[in-house]
Amino acid sequence: MITLEQIKEISVASPSKIVMLVMDGLGGLPDPKTGKTELETASTPHLDHLTRSGICGLVDPVGSGITPGSGPGHLALFGYDPFRFTIGRGVLEGLGIGFELTENDIAARGNFCTVDEQGLITDRRAGRITTDKCAELCELLRQIELDGIELFVLPVRDHRFLLVLRGERLAAELKDTDPQRIGVAPNIALATEPQAKHTAHITNTFVEEAEEILAMHDPANMVLLRGFSKLPHIPSMDEIYKLKPAAIACYPMYKGLAKLVGMKVFNADGGIEEELGILTDCYKEHDFFYVHVKEIDSAGEDGDFNRKVKLIEEVDSALPQLLDLKPDVVVVTGDHSTPALLKGHSWHPVPVLLHSQWCRHDKAKQFSESACASGGLGRFPAADIMPLAMANALKLTKFGA
Amino acid sequence: MITLEQIKEISVASPSKIVMLVMDGLGGLPDPKTGKTELETASTPHLDHLTRSGICGLVDPVGSGITPGSGPGHLALFGYDPFRFTIGRGVLEGLGIGFELTENDIAARGNFCTVDEQGLITDRRAGRITTDKCAELCELLRQIELDGIELFVLPVRDHRFLLVLRGERLAAELKDTDPQRIGVAPNIALATEPQAKHTAHITNTFVEEAEEILAMHDPANMVLLRGFSKLPHIPSMDEIYKLKPAAIACYPMYKGLAKLVGMKVFNADGGIEEELGILTDCYKEHDFFYVHVKEIDSAGEDGDFNRKVKLIEEVDSALPQLLDLKPDVVVVTGDHSTPALLKGHSWHPVPVLLHSQWCRHDKAKQFSESACASGGLGRFPAADIMPLAMANALKLTKFGA
Repeated sequence: MITLEQIKEISVASPSKIVMLVMDGLGGLPDPKTGKTELETASTPHLDHLTRSGICGLVDPVGSGITPGSGPGHLALFGYDPFRFTIGRGVLEGLGIGFELTENDIAARGNFCTVDEQGLITDRRAGRITTDKCAELCELLRQIELDGIELFVLPVRDHRFLLVLRGERLAAELKDTDPQRIGVAPNIALATEPQAKHTAHITNTFVEEAEEILAMHDPANMVLLRGFSKLPHIPSMDEIYKLKPAAIACYPMYKGLAKLVGMKVFNADGGIEEELGILTDCYKEHDFFYVHVKEIDSAGEDGDFNRKVKLIEEVDSALPQLLDLKPDVVVVTGDHSTPALLKGHSWHPVPVLLHSQWCRHDKAKQFSESACASGGLGRFPAADIMPLAMANALKLTKFGA
Repeated sequence: MITLEQIKEISVASPSKIVMLVMDGLGGLPDPKTGKTELETASTPHLDHLTRSGICGLVDPVGSGITPGSGPGHLALFGYDPFRFTIGRGVLEGLGIGFELTENDIAARGNFCTVDEQGLITDRRAGRITTDKCAELCELLRQIELDGIELFVLPVRDHRFLLVLRGERLAAELKDTDPQRIGVAPNIALATEPQAKHTAHITNTFVEEAEEILAMHDPANMVLLRGFSKLPHIPSMDEIYKLKPAAIACYPMYKGLAKLVGMKVFNADGGIEEELGILTDCYKEHDFFYVHVKEIDSAGEDGDFNRKVKLIEEVDSALPQLLDLKPDVVVVTGDHSTPALLKGHSWHPVPVLLHSQWCRHDKAKQFSESACASGGLGRFPAADIMPLAMANALKLTKFGA
């Protein structure tokens, strides 16, 4: 497979424009009564029209049988090998609540938990305390003073919080303090590499002080930490593809992921129509546009087949506004499948549709899992979408003489 | 591609059950008169029924254009990259005759051969002596005494034998003594790494004494050795997949391969019906079942198209007994193709059929090479079958957050 370094050698800047419309959790499974998936059930005249003059296929975001989290799913769409570029749990949690991580930060995902008198964990989630209670306890923990360290403790949801240690010479090579089971004591934070010894000491001091502060706050009388991580070094889309990329998204995690790869982020609050309005406004200034539609995934996660169908139809109805801009390349796909029947992300490959003047169009007549399964693009890794879109935008020169 | 280490991180034990039915040498080529392969000629109502509610595709056991031996073919089916995990010729020969290799063993494949008065090889197979004669000569060679070494010399078939040296500090980094051509003398065993010097010395002593003993046994008056090897270190299926795997097979090599990856091996003597009886008996105790049907390959190797058809039909007839157990996931495939027209293993991709509640079924109506070529799974490496089966059994959690 071609590397980013090799793509960098052959990419060229040009005025042509690429729009990547990501319908989060797009792929589905058929309703046993009708034999049709969410996408196949939805009435999508505009997507179907685009399919007839485009080319389609199925992509594996990570690999055959592998269910992607949002991080790897999106990195693959942006053209980054999700095995080479990984994002730690702590950093992802930070991206998820829109915390501005810096290069001097170590982030960890925290749980408030319950321990008994012997210090053994009896509930890893402290009875799932409310988010309000979580915020109140986070405020208490922010009072902890750590030598030379700026401390951030922020509520996420229910029993979950984000811990960020900011300071010089911190390292993330630490074992989780969360043993991921009950009946045992929390682990101490152990450095797995010598350079993390100092960070381990600071972390253990934080946990000791947290234990003291929380003693009176049963059931949330202790904390568990996992996924210690730093911002990964990811070469920007500008560097690799020579693109001026823009992201239009509502949810913090996706805005954070887009920022990680160097996109300019535009905030949207609402649905696809608002997002396409922003797209129109910033269309002149950029040449790559990532437009993210989150709610389709949420409907899948809720197991709400019909809502997922309706939301796909909403995107379809708004599509003419996007096509009116006449982008040189349009890609429509998802970051993973979220079948309503499974109520969660799944491993099933994701439909992808590519439209450009230069695509070799196939015989598919409808944008659907089954049409994509025999589409002209075949089945391929999602990280290959970007080179394909770049080629169709005539932004890649020859490889080799 | 995802590594076994990464799969280990996301695999979970669960009560769901996977049955992998391996029809050895399943794939074929069309009879020029009918245009149908062996599988397409066979009447397979039960496999076809399973196909209609399942999903199918074609797998490459090793790679495009590469004809797999039984070792790589099976390792791929068990989810092990056949390039990363290799099995030496000597070890494979040992597995093939059911010899219980230990960690202290060096195994080599031996040939009885003929040398002339100058010691130059005139026949690398000693006129293909009978297996009885081979057994008689092996018994003579077992009398050789080597300092601190336990020696095993066992007949395989015709002129072929297995040599095993058992002892402390033995190493397999040795060049073959078999030059693989005639008109030259056998090579001496040369260590390619310093730690194998001792083993090289022992091997050369063995060859010298064998030459003396065999001098009177023309045409089998010398031995050639190749494929010096030790048991490879392969992480077990329990370790990687958290499975309790069982193997049901007749032939020693397949039982040996299954044992290598940590399966509990159940012996079968006869056909598919006996094997499925064993499957039923051990069904409660295990959650992964490898059921091996050898004879289909043998018919292909013999060039007997019609017998291969009949044997496929026999498996089809027995299938209801397997399906009555209601496994969560059923995989039907082969370890390679063995077209009767080629009378041997071939590089052609192998049909695969997967059935589970969660597979996104395709439009295939018949289990055949041509239906699989446009099946929903597309064409993919055989080593990806295991992650896919694991996913369908809901035994894999998310990759990345």
